[in-house]
Amino acid sequence: MSQTVAQVTGDLYAEVQTFYARQMRRTDALDIEGFADTFTEDGEVTHADGGRTRGRAEMIAAMRTRLPRYRDVSTQHWFGQLLIEPMNDGSLEISYYTLVAQTGESGLSLQPAYTVRDVLVREPDGRLLTRSRSIRRSTPAQR
Amino acid sequence: MSQTVAQVTGDLYAEVQTFYARQMRRTDALDIEGFADTFTEDGEVTHADGGRTRGRAEMIAAMRTRLPRYRDVSTQHWFGQLLIEPMNDGSLEISYYTLVAQTGESGLSLQPAYTVRDVLVREPDGRLLTRSRSIRRSTPAQR
Amino acid sequence: MSQTVAQVTGDLYAEVQTFYARQMRRTDALDIEGFADTFTEDGEVTHADGGRTRGRAEMIAAMRTRLPRYRDVSTQHWFGQLLIEPMNDGSLEISYYTLVAQTGESGLSLQPAYTVRDVLVREPDGRLLTRSRSIRRSTPAQR
Repeated sequence: MSQTVAQVTGDLYAEVQTFYARQMRRTDALDIEGFADTFTEDGEVTHADGGRTRGRAEMIAAMRTRLPRYRDVSTQHWFGQLLIEPMNDGSLEISYYTLVAQTGESGLSLQPAYTVRDVLVREPDGRLLTRSRSIRRSTPAQR
Repeated sequence: MSQTVAQVTGDLYAEVQTFYARQMRRTDALDIEGFADTFTEDGEVTHADGGRTRGRAEMIAAMRTRLPRYRDVSTQHWFGQLLIEPMNDGSLEISYYTLVAQTGESGLSLQPAYTVRDVLVREPDGRLLTRSRSIRRSTPAQR
Repeated sequence: MSQTVAQVTGDLYAEVQTFYARQMRRTDALDIEGFADTFTEDGEVTHADGGRTRGRAEMIAAMRTRLPRYRDVSTQHWFGQLLIEPMNDGSLEISYYTLVAQTGESGLSLQPAYTVRDVLVREPDGRLLTRSRSIRRSTPAQR
């Protein structure tokens, strides 16, 4: 087991977790523009069904069409088992498990589990932004 | 997106997460006095139904009346998407998602999701204590 | 409430969380040898049913017999409320909640909740390895 991946500092770990806690509060509050602002201008999202959006404007339009699905339910995006890999170009490759919990009139339901891979980049002013996100529905490990 | 909130250090992030891991082990073990000890003497809890307790004695009495509901089940309080905002007066405003998992004879069940806002204060001896907690059942973001 | 436990640094907190994120990705990918490599050569696991494996070879054999149960489902091990207690001999006592989420053809299901206690040791080359793991199914706190 060769472990060549650099050790992640506590400060970076806290910063990345905080970045996601803010980003997900915007998603879960259906603050679509606020959510898009946590991506780079050319930010890209590849969804589990293969659909892809490129750039904030396209992302906002796609989210608007999905809004009706979130009417009458409250949504929480949970993240787990976060892994941070600092790249040579200064970007961060992140992967994490995600579960979406929805509370509606009939109680709580959980969506199928996903694994997500993000690339985060640091803006000149120091903020982190998501440059790309790839969402993959978890599939059996054994073929 | 103006981000005026101070960056949280890794040490503070680990300390706050550890504080909650200990506090929730006491709750989940039904160690009511031990749980109350993690609050300030005048600590206040506002429940999702609007009920409120003020001070450790009232908190302990209220928890005793709820005890029968936890008989025959084991409970785990899960926290996610923790956000820490250090205030000017030295206190910490914290918010997080919470899910309550209960395992009984018929397996696991999840309670509806909540969002919690806490104020933590640091005692002269360095320990953190909860000064106030406000528990809100998650409601649809869209009206 | 005497709190004699040493404060955990942000760096250690991030390191331990990262250790588990990598270890669980191997479990969930059914990479049995890779998983066993995250234990010491004499690593020990006590399962919730009282069964015990000692050493990597026994662990690998036991996991192979359980493989069929993971066919056709994808598994995510979620950890929560992690507590780290540094011991005098340099080892770390860790405890955490765990939920196992499985996504199959009929959607997501959650296994009953467990509480785990691990001892992690640091190898001469700096890596952390699990020396022992004790998995306990959560049981009612009240007798």
